[in-house]
Amino acid sequence: MAVSGVRKQIDEALYAFVDRQRPLLDGVSDDLSPLLAALDALLSGGKRLRPLFCYWGWRGTGGEDLPEFFNAAASLELLQAGALIHDDVMDGSDTRRGQPAAHRRFEALHAESGWRGSAEGFGAGAAILLGDVCLTWCDEMYQGSGLPDHALLNGRPVFDQMRTEVMCGQYLDLLGQARGSRPDGHAMVEAALRIVRYKSAKYTIERPLQLGAALAGSESVEALSAYGLPLGIAFQLRDDVLGVFGDPAATGKPAGDDLREGKRTVLIALALERASAAQAEAVENLLGDPGLNTAGVELLRSVIVETGGLDACEEMISRYAADASAALAAADLTAEAREALSELTVAATARTV
Amino acid sequence: MAVSGVRKQIDEALYAFVDRQRPLLDGVSDDLSPLLAALDALLSGGKRLRPLFCYWGWRGTGGEDLPEFFNAAASLELLQAGALIHDDVMDGSDTRRGQPAAHRRFEALHAESGWRGSAEGFGAGAAILLGDVCLTWCDEMYQGSGLPDHALLNGRPVFDQMRTEVMCGQYLDLLGQARGSRPDGHAMVEAALRIVRYKSAKYTIERPLQLGAALAGSESVEALSAYGLPLGIAFQLRDDVLGVFGDPAATGKPAGDDLREGKRTVLIALALERASAAQAEAVENLLGDPGLNTAGVELLRSVIVETGGLDACEEMISRYAADASAALAAADLTAEAREALSELTVAATARTV
Repeated sequence: MAVSGVRKQIDEALYAFVDRQRPLLDGVSDDLSPLLAALDALLSGGKRLRPLFCYWGWRGTGGEDLPEFFNAAASLELLQAGALIHDDVMDGSDTRRGQPAAHRRFEALHAESGWRGSAEGFGAGAAILLGDVCLTWCDEMYQGSGLPDHALLNGRPVFDQMRTEVMCGQYLDLLGQARGSRPDGHAMVEAALRIVRYKSAKYTIERPLQLGAALAGSESVEALSAYGLPLGIAFQLRDDVLGVFGDPAATGKPAGDDLREGKRTVLIALALERASAAQAEAVENLLGDPGLNTAGVELLRSVIVETGGLDACEEMISRYAADASAALAAADLTAEAREALSELTVAATARTV
Repeated sequence: MAVSGVRKQIDEALYAFVDRQRPLLDGVSDDLSPLLAALDALLSGGKRLRPLFCYWGWRGTGGEDLPEFFNAAASLELLQAGALIHDDVMDGSDTRRGQPAAHRRFEALHAESGWRGSAEGFGAGAAILLGDVCLTWCDEMYQGSGLPDHALLNGRPVFDQMRTEVMCGQYLDLLGQARGSRPDGHAMVEAALRIVRYKSAKYTIERPLQLGAALAGSESVEALSAYGLPLGIAFQLRDDVLGVFGDPAATGKPAGDDLREGKRTVLIALALERASAAQAEAVENLLGDPGLNTAGVELLRSVIVETGGLDACEEMISRYAADASAALAAADLTAEAREALSELTVAATARTV
């Protein structure tokens, strides 16, 4: 099936699941409708990357196009929705997928309604709860997918591990931002790469791919790491570059938002590793400033370019993407899956700035 | 088995599960140890009410004392841990089970370590993630309990519903605090009761009891509502009374904390329903004031007593407890379970102020 066809099946499974939940919420109270509205808005966007990689892990190891499988794969979008909603609360982000972040949406509801207390507190609280609902529904959708018990049991270790790993990766990310830079530039790159590994690479590509293969009963689940992990790293490094240099229309986030949030990405670490004392000072002063203006964004960009940080990052992306491509060529997958994954590899890591 | 014996089995299952997770976290990074330390501290307290009710639902409908069952029942403590951690972030609570709340613990770690940025933001973010880990582990522990697939499948609808319901109940609670009082006192009591139903009564007693019975393959799962729901309401109303009038040594929370948080409990609604204009004004002015002092707490207490709100609440507790006892006498449960539940009914609703 073409990628667009797969995406359509995933969407249908996802929306059908959410629709099946509506009566439960409506039965409790009409007052719950803003929760579903915020979820609907979030789910209307997104590239469905995790279910897509899960699909190719499944198809590539002999799985067939079954509605039950699409249920299991689409459940990963609910995990992602929960993670994004909570992430936006933690980062204080205003937008997500080109729309107001869930907590901002609830904040606006509070303000418009003239309720008492802090609109910000209400927004954060409601978003925490909506994220919790998503995490719970992820597992409900996976376990209730309709796939045979033995398939779900095969998938369980990967499914469980990926959920714990992404939360651990997020905590390490939070910790990295709190600690700021360390004296040793090389250790900083290593620390940033560790976060990428758990928060993004395993979570976005390696584990979904393995989950698909495990659900299909494949014996070569472990071996898919050789492709999934480097591609996942290349994918996140590309995302980090786009977060600083990308077109807001394409990223769905205002220019410089990652810089304002003070994200300690591999890109930043590579720049700091190569920075003069003056350049490092500029980064330390500007990075993470919530009020960073266009001039500040430009200054940080030029430091990242002039130190050679951007080139080093591009080189790293190419290296990881090449590792992924080599592993893919050798992987025990069907020709159809290898071709589709090859296209996804290019799309996920291509230089679009 | 005596209640203390059941509790011991639940604790053993719970701690063994958490211990099995340690290597995964240690394998990712030593930096994750504060997450487990905060969880260990939280799990060292708590009455294990949900697993206990689950146990009596199981035993009372023919289930035997199996380690696999204790795994499934103990998973509810991880749901409760996640809910409490997130609830404390939302309410800005300082303590939980007589110890610092998880977010305060992470906040202190940030402050002691001299990290950059907001200690409060770090504390909230880390606690959101720890709560997410708990929610994920709840389901991992349930599904991996070792009970036969058909038993887990029987339990699933209750397990899933209770998780969504508690989050919806929490949202309604948040909404109730934001909206404050409504013109019509009676509607206020109804709204507060609705929150009690979903956030507490179903979640703490009705659903756990039903889950136990469903896991045991009982045909009379629905019928247990007649006992579980009124007991759950009585239990929460008692908790609300203790939150205002209870001994801090017994509740594990500073006196008046519920008043400072502005909780719109049934007790408060019953008082407002009966209040004069001046009394209502005093409540509106003082309730939810984070800086409420001892004199303010005393004033609110006297309004709750003088309006007759406390008496009305005690009467309601007695009525719901009597309904529960009558339903218990008629329930299709073993004599042993009926006796144990009868003791739990008394313990959960007794006047101890």
